[in-house]
This record gives sequence, structure tokens and C-alpha cells, in this order.
Amino acid sequence: MSFRERLRAASERSGSLLCVGLDPDPARLPTHLGPADDARTVLAFNRAIIESTTDLVCAYKPNLGFYLAYGPAGVEALIETRRLIPPEIPVILDAKVGDLGNTSVAYARAYFDAWNFDAVTVHPYMGEDSLEPFLSRSDRAVFVLVKTSNPGSGDLQDLPVTDEGTTEPLYLRVAERARRWQGRYGTCGLVVGATYPRQLAEVRERCPDLPILVPGVGAQGGDLTTTVQAGLDPAGGGLLINAARGVIYAGTGPDFAQAARRAAIELRDAINQARQS
Amino acid sequence: MSFRERLRAASERSGSLLCVGLDPDPARLPTHLGPADDARTVLAFNRAIIESTTDLVCAYKPNLGFYLAYGPAGVEALIETRRLIPPEIPVILDAKVGDLGNTSVAYARAYFDAWNFDAVTVHPYMGEDSLEPFLSRSDRAVFVLVKTSNPGSGDLQDLPVTDEGTTEPLYLRVAERARRWQGRYGTCGLVVGATYPRQLAEVRERCPDLPILVPGVGAQGGDLTTTVQAGLDPAGGGLLINAARGVIYAGTGPDFAQAARRAAIELRDAINQARQS
Repeated sequence: MSFRERLRAASERSGSLLCVGLDPDPARLPTHLGPADDARTVLAFNRAIIESTTDLVCAYKPNLGFYLAYGPAGVEALIETRRLIPPEIPVILDAKVGDLGNTSVAYARAYFDAWNFDAVTVHPYMGEDSLEPFLSRSDRAVFVLVKTSNPGSGDLQDLPVTDEGTTEPLYLRVAERARRWQGRYGTCGLVVGATYPRQLAEVRERCPDLPILVPGVGAQGGDLTTTVQAGLDPAGGGLLINAARGVIYAGTGPDFAQAARRAAIELRDAINQARQS
Repeated sequence: MSFRERLRAASERSGSLLCVGLDPDPARLPTHLGPADDARTVLAFNRAIIESTTDLVCAYKPNLGFYLAYGPAGVEALIETRRLIPPEIPVILDAKVGDLGNTSVAYARAYFDAWNFDAVTVHPYMGEDSLEPFLSRSDRAVFVLVKTSNPGSGDLQDLPVTDEGTTEPLYLRVAERARRWQGRYGTCGLVVGATYPRQLAEVRERCPDLPILVPGVGAQGGDLTTTVQAGLDPAGGGLLINAARGVIYAGTGPDFAQAARRAAIELRDAINQARQS
């Protein structure tokens, strides 16, 4: 089954476009779980978050950086976290990878084969051949950074670029490439930050049927209704609305998992309301 | 001491612009060292390579991907590899990182603080704010991908971009930004592939005094003399010519470390000859 089929099934089963970001920040882990600098605390935290949200999400997305900050034990916790997630829920490793040749092959071997993630996020700057070891895996997916959620993302992404007789912002030329990679490989998705709803609508128009991963709702300030309406595909889906801090750190006491569940339900429902409005 | 001062000192001490890439490929590790899929074999390999080349290089550059492919034990081997390298030789972690906000902070904490690397390579696509946690570390360095060595690097990097009234290829706008980041932070370097000597000369003209890391000599096909002449700074230095496969896999038998040493001497001397010609 392709990633897209699995994503659609997970989204229909849960009635949800919510993707929960599993980003363990030592400054925010509930203290009763154990020392914040111990990767076992991360694993206990993730286990509780996963158990309390597994029926509410279409996907999970751990970000590699937070795990590497724990060293070798963090990588172990990351691999184990993937194992804790039911196999029918796709897991996207937010690794923002972008390298070349046999190095990309090594990354794909780690992320897809050894660690068993269903998808990765990638940097487009090095071009198609650099991503081929990821794109060519027909049962996985590759989410290409198009327009990122950070305040300064326009620095390069918004620059007008002339390409094939068209002049438009770089992020749209990246979306155009991803559209073609989708035609060639069938494994492409996009990343567009919720903080840029106008650009999200443009990207959706350019790529009507690609899944779009949308970080930046909540803590980063993106407005939910605007975002959802800008990003839905013609069938009313095709979005993964990612929330990390707003869900996983909704509570910090012994009831943090229940607090996360309540926050996830609220967000799932708000997304669904925006889908229908 | 700043990274640049340490780099210059290492380069003068060794009389060398050679940077050796420590990229353990399980398919190419000498079989007598142990099982190729065991991270301890990687460490034994790196130890021998480092011991036999330490007086011949200005820096080492391990690529994160090859270590992650070994899982948690690979990260341990990477951290231990850094410890094996004498502190006066700068070590660049080729992680091609590019993320935002508190995630970039987590990466910086891992790569610079916990693992003690002197520099990292970064993707520019997400803009200055995404790189600030790296750039702002006055005792470290950040090598920005400008024009990469892979065949398809022109896909986006060569597109003409209009920026501040100037129209030129994207990679030159990235070089221009790096030049300003250097003015602001003093910690910037560049990455330009040896496979593109014309573009290397352009980038050098734009950024006369930034260190340029140049991968792609040898295995990837870049011509050494052309590359060195295109990339030297006005003082006849400022280059890190990276070689991995051509040096570390020069031999595969029990004498692999001696073979690596011979290859490194040959390359160091060839680089120095090109500097003077």
C-alpha cells in the first residue's frame, strides 16, 4: 500500500487531519516522569502521549533534532517511539534531510529501512538527484519543504525566480518541481507553514492532489480556519495539520496525557469544523 | 579563539589545505577490522585513519548520514571519533542541517555542545533566522551550502533570481547572504563543489575572505588544479579541499592506514603545488 493510501485510511478511520508532533523538549517534560535529561523519560512521555491520542490522529511527526540532543540514547528512544505507534498510523520523520549520492542512500537506509519511518521531510536546495534515494521508494513518502513557517522564511523562498519563461517566487518553483516529482515517483508531499495561508492557497492551486504537511498552527501563530480552508484538496482532505507544543504540553502534571488528549480532541474538532465551513 | 583562527593555525601547522572526510561506508571498510555492520569496526577504522593522517590535514569532516545508518551505536561512534581527533584540529560535522526555532536550538546543543564539533554544514533555504542558533556561536562555524557538487545541483541553485535590483543565479544570492552573515556574526563559511570551478571562482570573487569547503575532488570528478586556483583567497589560503573515498579507501587490506597516509600526502602535495602554480 502506498503512503497516500495508508494516510487516507488513517485519516478516515480517525476522522482527523491532525498530526501530532512528538518533539521532546527537556524544559517542558513533566517532572514526575523522571530526569528531563534522560532519554527514558522521553520514551515514557511519548508512550503516554501516543496511547492517549492514537485514535485522534492521521499521523505522528517526531523531529529528529530533539532526539539527537539526547545523543545515542535519544536515537534509541526515537526508534522505540516509532515501534510504539500502531503500524497503521503513518509516521513522518521530520529530519529536513538533503544530501547527495551515497550519503542520501545512507540516510534512506537509516530512516526508512532500519528505523522504519513512513516518510521524511527534505530540503529541495540540492535538486532532484539528491532526493532520488528517497523519492524512488514507492511505499514511502517525501515531504518537500516549500514555504516554511518561520518568520524569515521569505529570505530566499520569496525571491522572484525566472524558470521556463515564468517569473514567480522560489517557493512556487519548488512546488512546481514537487508536482513533477509526484508525476514521476508518486511519493511526493509538501510542507507549507500555517503562518502563510495565502501562500498555502497558491501551493494548493499548483498541486491540487498532493498531501500538504502544515506545521505552525497554535504556538507559532497560524490561524486554524484560514489555514484549513486555504489548504484542503478538492476532495476536502489532503492536509496534515501538525501540532506539537499545543497538544503534548497542554498539561505538565500527572494528568498531562489526559490534557494532551483533550487538546487533541479540541484541535481535531476545530479542524473538522473548518473543513465543513 | 575563533574557528577561523584555529583553522588557519591547523593549516599552517600541517602546511595543508586537505580536509579528510570520515565517511564509513559498510561496503568499503577493510574486512579484517571486524563486521562491517558493527559500529565498533567504524571506530577502529576511523582511529587508524586519524592516526595516520593527523599531521597532514587542516580539518576532518565526518558526514552524519553514514553514522546514523549505524543507529544509536553509530552516533556513539561519531561522538567518540570527534574525541579521537586532537583538539587543535577543527572538525566539521557535515549534517546539512536546516530547521527552525527551538529545533535549531536542539540541533546546536547536540552538535556543538554535547558532541563538541567545531562547525556544521547548513541548508540556506529556510533563511537567516533558522540558522541564527548556529551563526551566533562565536567560537564555532557554519558552512552554508552555496553550490553543491552533485550533477543536478543546478536544478534550483542555477535559477536566475531577482533580488535588490540584481538578477543572478540563486547560488550567488546565497553567497551574498553568507557574506552579510559573516559581517554580522563572523562565523560563516561556504560550501562549493569542486565539480563547478567556474562557480567557485565567482563565489570567491563575491566573498574574498570566507573559508570555502570544497567537496567533490577525486571520486566525484573535480579537477584539483582548476579547483584550487579558482578557490584560493587573496592570501593563498581559505580553502578546505575535502577528500573522503580517495583517501580513506585508498587501500582495503591490513595496510589500509598506510595507503590512506600515502594518498593524503599525495593530495596535500598536489594541492600545494596548485597553490604555487
